[in-house]
Amino acid sequence: MADDYQLQSNGHGGELVKKPLVQLYVKASGIDSRRIGACLFCQEFWMELFALYELGVVRVEVKTVNVNSEPFKKSFLGAQPPIMLEEEKQAQYTDNREIEGRIFHIAKEFNVPLFEKDPVVEKRIESFYRNFKLFLRAKTEHDKGKREPSPIESIPPQIKTHYNRVVEQLAGIDELLQDRGSRYLLGDSMTEYDCELMPRLHHMRIVGHRLLGFDIPHNLTYLWNYVLTGYRTAAFIESCPADQDILHHYKEQLNLFTNQRETLQEPTKTHTLPEDVLDSIRRLGLDTK
Amino acid sequence: MADDYQLQSNGHGGELVKKPLVQLYVKASGIDSRRIGACLFCQEFWMELFALYELGVVRVEVKTVNVNSEPFKKSFLGAQPPIMLEEEKQAQYTDNREIEGRIFHIAKEFNVPLFEKDPVVEKRIESFYRNFKLFLRAKTEHDKGKREPSPIESIPPQIKTHYNRVVEQLAGIDELLQDRGSRYLLGDSMTEYDCELMPRLHHMRIVGHRLLGFDIPHNLTYLWNYVLTGYRTAAFIESCPADQDILHHYKEQLNLFTNQRETLQEPTKTHTLPEDVLDSIRRLGLDTK
Repeated sequence: MADDYQLQSNGHGGELVKKPLVQLYVKASGIDSRRIGACLFCQEFWMELFALYELGVVRVEVKTVNVNSEPFKKSFLGAQPPIMLEEEKQAQYTDNREIEGRIFHIAKEFNVPLFEKDPVVEKRIESFYRNFKLFLRAKTEHDKGKREPSPIESIPPQIKTHYNRVVEQLAGIDELLQDRGSRYLLGDSMTEYDCELMPRLHHMRIVGHRLLGFDIPHNLTYLWNYVLTGYRTAAFIESCPADQDILHHYKEQLNLFTNQRETLQEPTKTHTLPEDVLDSIRRLGLDTK
Repeated sequence: MADDYQLQSNGHGGELVKKPLVQLYVKASGIDSRRIGACLFCQEFWMELFALYELGVVRVEVKTVNVNSEPFKKSFLGAQPPIMLEEEKQAQYTDNREIEGRIFHIAKEFNVPLFEKDPVVEKRIESFYRNFKLFLRAKTEHDKGKREPSPIESIPPQIKTHYNRVVEQLAGIDELLQDRGSRYLLGDSMTEYDCELMPRLHHMRIVGHRLLGFDIPHNLTYLWNYVLTGYRTAAFIESCPADQDILHHYKEQLNLFTNQRETLQEPTKTHTLPEDVLDSIRRLGLDTK
């Protein structure tokens, strides 16, 4: 099962290096506790560990956990996922700072540039998700009781301000990606910045479409191409919740009526791009890079 | 009300510096949502912010939040306390890494040595709470159904191992404090290490007494004196949950029967030391330091 797998060996042709075995507990979906839930920190660490696994540096086991189950509560005494374990060291990391610290340490030990710093990138992507949440909350509040999200053109000025801020920032990231001309934010391989940004962009897409009548503007070709890179990155695909599980999470938090559409549907993952966007990507030759 | 206060001005006699206003949302008690709950990360950040407030560097507002309330869930979309806000910057920090990053930044800006590093101290205190939790879980499981915690002398070897590890580590910290001869772990003022360790030691004391029949060994005078320092440190006192709220938290997590003792009692805080320990502290002259 994809959500509960164990990756054993990889790379370094037969060397007998003792690789640390790392277990990551991620939040289960509220629909089905065997499925991955929409926890952004969980996905971020999962992607980082996956990158280390692909380089043959660690063994990784991921387990989805139902945070309301008594055995879970008892085992972790109130800690919330993500939770990371290393049984050999009898170590349990329940704080994001500790988890990141440990992954950082492993990456450093094996010279994997997963945590390279870039203040320009950092500045450009920071508070992006925060701004999206402000827009999301304001617009769903405004649309309360409506059957479908209202059109963006008709929203009142104070919500429009939130909307504009989100779009401006997306344009800023698009521009950055054009300047850099690289697959990922810092170059040809994934770093922690991508593990942060990719899941957030994807959530925005899924939630925007269904709850806001909003989409990433189609003219932001470099940004869309970056989203596509995510959809072609094993670390992202493997750790990505289904559309239904993402929607369910936000509806629960926003206290919106949860109809049976999501809960009964076969889970699907939207990992494709709109046709016109794909055309633009091809026209700019980004698909052949 | 102590749990919901606003600290306005302090220090820097009349200078017109624009101090950042920081709001910290901490988890409320499961008994009464107006009371502080037993969230260790919340207390850690609260202590750090309090230290910065005392130096006149920030203004701080602390609010207790009921994580199960719909308005809370909706405002923060699934994020859990601690949550930090800075309205002027429209910034919301929901990740411990972000919160610490921001506090670190403020401390650095004003040259407050709150985050000084000391690898020896770090090594000595790390995984201390983790080991305590292993002991706590094993012993409460063993004592299930009993009216009172069984005596430490009678526990089976595998639980004794956990117990021994905790006591050894406490002795190690006692030794470190003796070597250093300072009030706090790094010197005469509090650092993040104290904001981590003090609340954990206090939880251990309260929970140990009531659920485990365990106490910090009375011969560890330097460690006890450090606990006493906590009880005389405003940042600790102000941010410390009542005994009943601490107990309630652990009982809930361990799925133990919650009797009405805690829930109906007037909240109290055990911030005193056993008499024999106080005598030893006096004998060593630690109380006059």
